[in-house]
Amino acid sequence: MPEAPVVAVIGGGQLARMLAEPAAAMAVPLRLLAEAEGVSAAQVVPDQVVGDYADLDTLRVVTHGCAVVTFDHEHVPTEHLRALERDLAVRPGPEALVHAQDKAVMRRRLGELGVPCPRNAVVADVEAVVAFGLPCVVKTTRGGYDGKGVWFVETPEDCAPAFESGVPVLAEERVPFRRELSAIVARSPSGQVAAYPVVATTQLDGICHEVVAPAPDLDPGLAVQAQRLAMRVAAELGVTGLLAVELFETTDGRILVNELAMRPHNTGHWTQDGAVTSQFENHLRAVLDLPLGAPDARERWTVMVNILGGAAETGRLYDGYPHALARDPRLRVHLYGKGLRPGRKVGHVNAYGDDLEDCLERARHAAAWFRGDLGEESQ
Amino acid sequence: MPEAPVVAVIGGGQLARMLAEPAAAMAVPLRLLAEAEGVSAAQVVPDQVVGDYADLDTLRVVTHGCAVVTFDHEHVPTEHLRALERDLAVRPGPEALVHAQDKAVMRRRLGELGVPCPRNAVVADVEAVVAFGLPCVVKTTRGGYDGKGVWFVETPEDCAPAFESGVPVLAEERVPFRRELSAIVARSPSGQVAAYPVVATTQLDGICHEVVAPAPDLDPGLAVQAQRLAMRVAAELGVTGLLAVELFETTDGRILVNELAMRPHNTGHWTQDGAVTSQFENHLRAVLDLPLGAPDARERWTVMVNILGGAAETGRLYDGYPHALARDPRLRVHLYGKGLRPGRKVGHVNAYGDDLEDCLERARHAAAWFRGDLGEESQ
Repeated sequence: MPEAPVVAVIGGGQLARMLAEPAAAMAVPLRLLAEAEGVSAAQVVPDQVVGDYADLDTLRVVTHGCAVVTFDHEHVPTEHLRALERDLAVRPGPEALVHAQDKAVMRRRLGELGVPCPRNAVVADVEAVVAFGLPCVVKTTRGGYDGKGVWFVETPEDCAPAFESGVPVLAEERVPFRRELSAIVARSPSGQVAAYPVVATTQLDGICHEVVAPAPDLDPGLAVQAQRLAMRVAAELGVTGLLAVELFETTDGRILVNELAMRPHNTGHWTQDGAVTSQFENHLRAVLDLPLGAPDARERWTVMVNILGGAAETGRLYDGYPHALARDPRLRVHLYGKGLRPGRKVGHVNAYGDDLEDCLERARHAAAWFRGDLGEESQ
Repeated sequence: MPEAPVVAVIGGGQLARMLAEPAAAMAVPLRLLAEAEGVSAAQVVPDQVVGDYADLDTLRVVTHGCAVVTFDHEHVPTEHLRALERDLAVRPGPEALVHAQDKAVMRRRLGELGVPCPRNAVVADVEAVVAFGLPCVVKTTRGGYDGKGVWFVETPEDCAPAFESGVPVLAEERVPFRRELSAIVARSPSGQVAAYPVVATTQLDGICHEVVAPAPDLDPGLAVQAQRLAMRVAAELGVTGLLAVELFETTDGRILVNELAMRPHNTGHWTQDGAVTSQFENHLRAVLDLPLGAPDARERWTVMVNILGGAAETGRLYDGYPHALARDPRLRVHLYGKGLRPGRKVGHVNAYGDDLEDCLERARHAAAWFRGDLGEESQ
């Protein structure tokens, strides 16, 4: 059989798992590097290697014979990506990806581009944070995600933990924001860009919790500004694949860049059921340099709510189906094949329709039910 | 990790492949029995056994530890299904499935139920066909699909091939029909039923070629009648999972049952992009006895066109993407990971929207392009 190009995917988390759905539909073979046997994506991708993404030899074994390599996370060392580039297309490439790996590099580059960001400075020690101005936010420049590696500091004493790991630290002003937004674009090596509608996101303890697409009552001018900003950053940084730009909408009506991610993003999970082309399919198309699919919303509103492991031991997620599906025959459920642990992302639900309040209620109820937060009386 | 029930799937064709997409989303593990290494579904289901579905020991190995077994095709011998039923849920069960395996059993039962069918009779030889009345249609009662095992006969000489295989033969009147329709329902063991909109189907050489959902200009009373008929047949036959009822809409405004299938069906592929819940997801939910998803159409029109291997040797299907996707950013493509062979189903496209002519044009163009039927000048 004449084969389609094989796409290597580094990392076996839920993003790789959800990439496997459009890959199956498009008959694009994936080869997975999984951290361990049976992790989320390893349950659904037959062609897999179990090994360490920080080991170049392992990366060479996985990518051998592949046309493209892409990523479930941003943790592959830059020097390994540069080495792989000699043999196959690395998308996003190391020169782009470093801006999602290192917050200091990202801030410096966005500053050079004149992209609006919170005031920030690399700080060497607690005294430097005090000089920057307290209260503020301190972040390790590498290795953080889902609220890890970020501290909201009021006093010099609060700052100490940020310096414990030895990773360089960034101080940023606390931005008085109305809410958080996310602008996702897909960009192909040929330069085609598709911009998704700008969404509103709610975080809980630094983890994306809820997304409303499109962002309600967003000024149309600000929405276009956010999309243009994401398109410009993607082009200037040479991103191939998806770029998610997390933004603050300030109380005085500006947008500032909070974080960048160069992969399918939690704030884009609504697209699986709410957009013409999902973020996962467009990431796949982009890294293959295929024409991108329409990013338009199919519905007036789509609400995504994450399912996080709760404090209660609730047995298996599967047992949430009978009630959740019977209560809402239009609900869309996405589970990741992970066991429940407190605070762990184990799935999400999407609810779409014409009435935002109804979508919110349906999605929140279902997510709480799967989490085990609702008693029988709350049905 | 606390596990969801494992679903065994017998047969590694494209229907099993497409079942893997909602199974991944719902975190329902599949275990596949594939006819050979690397067949369509074997490319996307890690947990697989390669073997013969007609061998009971192989079936026992595959289904060991599974909660449910379901099917990509209708060819597993009834006695094996009965044996498996002692250990796990067989859905659909042998008593139902026989009606999709044996056309004589199906016709007799539908006759008993008073379900309208073409006039028919089991015929022992060519003389019996002549006595039944020529011209007519003769069919082997078992083993036919996609036009194989069906002959449109005018003369006694035409009838001979039908009797060559030794399988019992059915004669049926040639129904003067306006068009063919399909009514698909999902039915769970608990008795819940979800009825999809009735669609119009076009066959080429006995193979489903094009589906329009919903069937244009279908009398609303006849549509409800078709859905009720499918629901009644599913209940009377004890179907669990999907039932596709292929129908003739006669020139005098009646509906007659042509064929039954008890699995996801080519005439339901439009639901992947055009319905709230795809036929594949509802089949999975039904065999697990989970509440069914809404079968409603999401769009005014959805058109499905099959991609069949053409006479031309056109290299790999993948090379159809750049033009097809760039021309139509809203096009939905589903390829099966199969090589091109003349007449072989290798994929399908879905196009949805408010304008039926536009959907037809887009889907037909894309399918023809993948087939290799269009020259550069036809773009």
